[in-house]
Amino acid sequence: MHHVRFRDPAGAVRTGEWHGDSVSFGGEDYDLGEVDVLPPCEPSKIVCIGRNYAKHAEERDEEVPDRPLLFLKPPNAVAGHGDTVTLPAGKEQVEHEAELAVVIGEQCRNVASEDAEDVIAGYTVMNDVSNRDDQDIETNWVRGKAFDGSAPLGPVLADPDHLPDDASISLRVNGETRQDSSIEHLIFSIPDLVAEITTYMTLEAGDVISTGTPEGVGPLEDGDHVEVEVEGVGVLEHDVRQD
Amino acid sequence: MHHVRFRDPAGAVRTGEWHGDSVSFGGEDYDLGEVDVLPPCEPSKIVCIGRNYAKHAEERDEEVPDRPLLFLKPPNAVAGHGDTVTLPAGKEQVEHEAELAVVIGEQCRNVASEDAEDVIAGYTVMNDVSNRDDQDIETNWVRGKAFDGSAPLGPVLADPDHLPDDASISLRVNGETRQDSSIEHLIFSIPDLVAEITTYMTLEAGDVISTGTPEGVGPLEDGDHVEVEVEGVGVLEHDVRQD
Repeated sequence: MHHVRFRDPAGAVRTGEWHGDSVSFGGEDYDLGEVDVLPPCEPSKIVCIGRNYAKHAEERDEEVPDRPLLFLKPPNAVAGHGDTVTLPAGKEQVEHEAELAVVIGEQCRNVASEDAEDVIAGYTVMNDVSNRDDQDIETNWVRGKAFDGSAPLGPVLADPDHLPDDASISLRVNGETRQDSSIEHLIFSIPDLVAEITTYMTLEAGDVISTGTPEGVGPLEDGDHVEVEVEGVGVLEHDVRQD
Repeated sequence: MHHVRFRDPAGAVRTGEWHGDSVSFGGEDYDLGEVDVLPPCEPSKIVCIGRNYAKHAEERDEEVPDRPLLFLKPPNAVAGHGDTVTLPAGKEQVEHEAELAVVIGEQCRNVASEDAEDVIAGYTVMNDVSNRDDQDIETNWVRGKAFDGSAPLGPVLADPDHLPDDASISLRVNGETRQDSSIEHLIFSIPDLVAEITTYMTLEAGDVISTGTPEGVGPLEDGDHVEVEVEGVGVLEHDVRQD
């Protein structure tokens, strides 16, 4: 099943089912145009992984790390399917990064790799919007990666069995393909990421682990329409504004 | 006034008044031993400032930055007054950092320095517990600074008028003074920090800005009792365990 959170025409927040062109809850069916699709979860934190595809590390002129490179996005970073992300003002290089995102299903700590599937609610799609002007010169990527709207997320939470082991991951800007790879190229596996992160911190239900981006990152500009697709999970769409 | 959140003997969460040896709510007075003092706020994120006292940058062999060095602690990092912080397992160098913490009073974005006082609810005290083993080798300080319990916070939220401009800030481990300075040595002022951070992200009511630590940081070990004091605000106490 593909779960979707949305505000129905009466303004009530529902967790229902996604059907592509419509959503449903409680026996009612709504066209997508009638509802406001919300982010599929409300993370207390997003734990992101840097350089988790070798060809992306290469295009950024960076080494592949010998253990997962972790960084954080706070709740203010989250945006939803169909939203318009406003890029930080006055920056020259803000880029897209297509990512498969893991949604945690229960509070957990010290989870072994072999038990990771027990704490995974499912999968969604994220664009790790990255302000390189600041990222490239700051010690921790806060201005670079944690600004408002830097984590468009959605549209659905897909049950784990929908994700093929070799799912394709791609990103299009105004219809042009920019990123096109497969999650089989992930350096650190999802179970290993869950284990590593929960060695240090508690993950809460609704928290997100974003697994890193493949090669092909590139610029976002005012007016762009972005589609991020993970096979079996869905297509996240959002617009971009730069004042 | 010094506000305190606590669980009363019946288990109810109260926001009352702190009197040093007792707390009160709704006309009832409770000895400290009767209640569980909670963190004074529930931040969606803690925005921390690195190297904001020149003598601390020096002792860590680092340059003073030309704009605030920002890093993040997520909600799982928070611990309260009287709690026991468990240090990450197997680390050799975990250190204390006494800090003055700003508590935000309302959702805000793009706040000018001269308007910063409008969004500040008050002040509390934080220990920015730092795992140097990881901090010194990772790109973003997540294992180093965002682990469970890395942000003991409290015991009170002091109204802004309680904080002298030259408030002393100090830290004692098992009664021995380790840090002893004054907030007049802050490089970036509190209004400037609010302005810089809100250029990039929304701050929510209850969010915390921790303003950095003065010189004198040093090791924490199993069994240590820590007291962090900011003049006019209060004394945060917590214990340390290492398995």
